[in-house]
Amino acid sequence: MADAIDFYFDFSSPYGYFAASRIEALAAKHDRNVDWHPVLLGAVFKTTGGMPLSAIPMKGDYSFHDFERTARFHRIPYNRPSAFPLPTQAAARAMLWVRTTLGDAKAVEFAKAVYRAYFVDGVNIGEPSAVAQIGSGIGIDPAALTEGLNSEPIKDKLKADVAQAMARGVFGSPFMIVDGESFWGFDRFDQLDAFLKNGKI
Amino acid sequence: MADAIDFYFDFSSPYGYFAASRIEALAAKHDRNVDWHPVLLGAVFKTTGGMPLSAIPMKGDYSFHDFERTARFHRIPYNRPSAFPLPTQAAARAMLWVRTTLGDAKAVEFAKAVYRAYFVDGVNIGEPSAVAQIGSGIGIDPAALTEGLNSEPIKDKLKADVAQAMARGVFGSPFMIVDGESFWGFDRFDQLDAFLKNGKI
Repeated sequence: MADAIDFYFDFSSPYGYFAASRIEALAAKHDRNVDWHPVLLGAVFKTTGGMPLSAIPMKGDYSFHDFERTARFHRIPYNRPSAFPLPTQAAARAMLWVRTTLGDAKAVEFAKAVYRAYFVDGVNIGEPSAVAQIGSGIGIDPAALTEGLNSEPIKDKLKADVAQAMARGVFGSPFMIVDGESFWGFDRFDQLDAFLKNGKI
Repeated sequence: MADAIDFYFDFSSPYGYFAASRIEALAAKHDRNVDWHPVLLGAVFKTTGGMPLSAIPMKGDYSFHDFERTARFHRIPYNRPSAFPLPTQAAARAMLWVRTTLGDAKAVEFAKAVYRAYFVDGVNIGEPSAVAQIGSGIGIDPAALTEGLNSEPIKDKLKADVAQAMARGVFGSPFMIVDGESFWGFDRFDQLDAFLKNGKI
């Protein structure tokens, strides 16, 4: 099988959530796998000077409207979270621990459960206790998950992953890299699809 | 006929150029007219804290690649300009003068000629003399155009237009407003198309 699609996302990113709900179908269509990489946009924004969309004058109001409209347009379940954006260290570390401990398939299942909890069920995923409960909902021991996400090796692993992502040019969410080509945004899925089909655009 | 689509753009915006090359066909498909409004992103960015994409660390390199790739994907002629971004006061004022003096159809023809000169032929449209020459190329007297774009009423008109655009929430280019619904970006043409077809999304 050809190389996997590297899929970078922040758990607080609505467009990351939309992408997460569609990336596997797109990859499967072109016989590709997906490597899921949680990143922290807060760390990235320290370098780029970026800000959460919702915090930017004028752009903020539009963005909230665009999140909802884009969800409807693509028929993706979405409810505006009351806390937005929020810190995603706990969720990202938890996903890395699940991957290390239970394997990649479970980690991806966990990532989707986190996104659904945040953007459909209104759970405040900034709270480590909420993250543990999401794990519990898919059969992961919440005490072990909590201990794991607080462990130094997992914290170091996330830092290293974010640094590596930035070294590859990742500055937003979602961000996809495949065969040396980078795509930023759920609204580039059409170009990503064409690239996977034709090997070029 | 139903209300026109208000189409806001900066002459230095590649995505504005892409949108300008497709907006009339999209509007015609839904029996709409287009009202073309040149704006100055530099003035808008003073409020939003925005920056030209190309000036943002990491995002800059990606953006130049995305301009070219998006042009190829949509089969729109595009050559990366050597001067980018650049001031667009002269071009925007010139378009307003053409509209006042020669009517809207000529103003739209002029706008398209400016975009083509900049993003296909590599003309530095930041120079008033280049703007006059572009006018000359479509039969507009360059001396009258130069005098017109330097006149106080035209300068005031552009300031008022930009202020009005910002009051309506315009913060980027391209930006489309129709029937109270706002769309930012050439990559929202799919949603704009759906909205014009169904009256909602």
